[in-house]
Amino acid sequence: MERNYSSLILAQAVHEISRLPGIGEKTALRLALHILKKDVAQARALGNAIIHLKENIKMCGICHNISDSETCTVCSNSERDHSIICIVENTRDVMAIENTGQYKGVYHVLGGIISPMEGVGPADLMIDSLLERINSDKVKEVIFALPTTMEGDTTNFYLYKKLAHFNVEISTLARGVAIGEDLEYTDEITLGRSLVNRIKFAQS
Amino acid sequence: MERNYSSLILAQAVHEISRLPGIGEKTALRLALHILKKDVAQARALGNAIIHLKENIKMCGICHNISDSETCTVCSNSERDHSIICIVENTRDVMAIENTGQYKGVYHVLGGIISPMEGVGPADLMIDSLLERINSDKVKEVIFALPTTMEGDTTNFYLYKKLAHFNVEISTLARGVAIGEDLEYTDEITLGRSLVNRIKFAQS
Repeated sequence: MERNYSSLILAQAVHEISRLPGIGEKTALRLALHILKKDVAQARALGNAIIHLKENIKMCGICHNISDSETCTVCSNSERDHSIICIVENTRDVMAIENTGQYKGVYHVLGGIISPMEGVGPADLMIDSLLERINSDKVKEVIFALPTTMEGDTTNFYLYKKLAHFNVEISTLARGVAIGEDLEYTDEITLGRSLVNRIKFAQS
Repeated sequence: MERNYSSLILAQAVHEISRLPGIGEKTALRLALHILKKDVAQARALGNAIIHLKENIKMCGICHNISDSETCTVCSNSERDHSIICIVENTRDVMAIENTGQYKGVYHVLGGIISPMEGVGPADLMIDSLLERINSDKVKEVIFALPTTMEGDTTNFYLYKKLAHFNVEISTLARGVAIGEDLEYTDEITLGRSLVNRIKFAQS
């Protein structure tokens, strides 16, 4: 429904805000009226942060993760283990793994996964630069951390074939019953896989 | 939880977006990554619309509704009936009534309702300017369209007392069973009131 805005400026702001995903016109209006209530400094901070975000953010030249500089903080950190590369779909996956605090290697962000349905082929992903990295750097291990979907498996398979020529170890994230999860509520595929890949106790 | 952003620019944008009501850090990140995917023009349009909104929007000097100019389009429209003033709480109520296309009078936006719990007293609302309007203009009727809450009723009562000195008709929105609504699902107070205020068929 076309609403009757008393102000074109308001209508314009609502229009722009409602173009964001998951935000309808009603929510956009609520947000716009909220911004109107707050002081000018906050509106400027928000508006400029959005413009700044798009204008000034870079992609790391090595791992293609979002970065403030030409080389991201992970790739430029000499304390990280540059011989292990974890392959992920996007920035969010890097954040998820970084938040665990358990990984000391570096990343490679593909920027998507192979999806014929959405017209994404290997050429659209950052695969060439990955092969170059493995070729030139002293890479010992590559960890696949792509989603367990048909697209993720396709991408895994494609990369696996490509990496077969290199002398690197290939591993993938362990899949299994989540910690704290009831067996009763675990899906059959995950439970089945966690049985097949069961971990033996070390005999003392 | 403090997330590990690979970019300070991204962290800043997420921080600003997550200050909006109803938007948490996860949603803010999703929106920021969406903005990153779109072109620069769209990010600039959004950012500038937000800044523009706060910097350039005005309040109508007469009815205090949001407006692009000193006098809003309703108050400056000579085809509207300036002898009827509808009193509403905020801009959203004006939009709701305008969307019906049934009202040809003008408005007065109080900017809130009397709420001792939230520390809002009559002095915080646009009541003085309402009395001035009624005093100086040729106002015949005032329609109360405030919410049917304790705060709304308190405000109605306060205004009713204030308007008693003026020679104006006072009316309020009809409350009753909504069109298309089942009696079974109508709350008792609304159904009771719609019985008391029943409308008689005109006898032919």
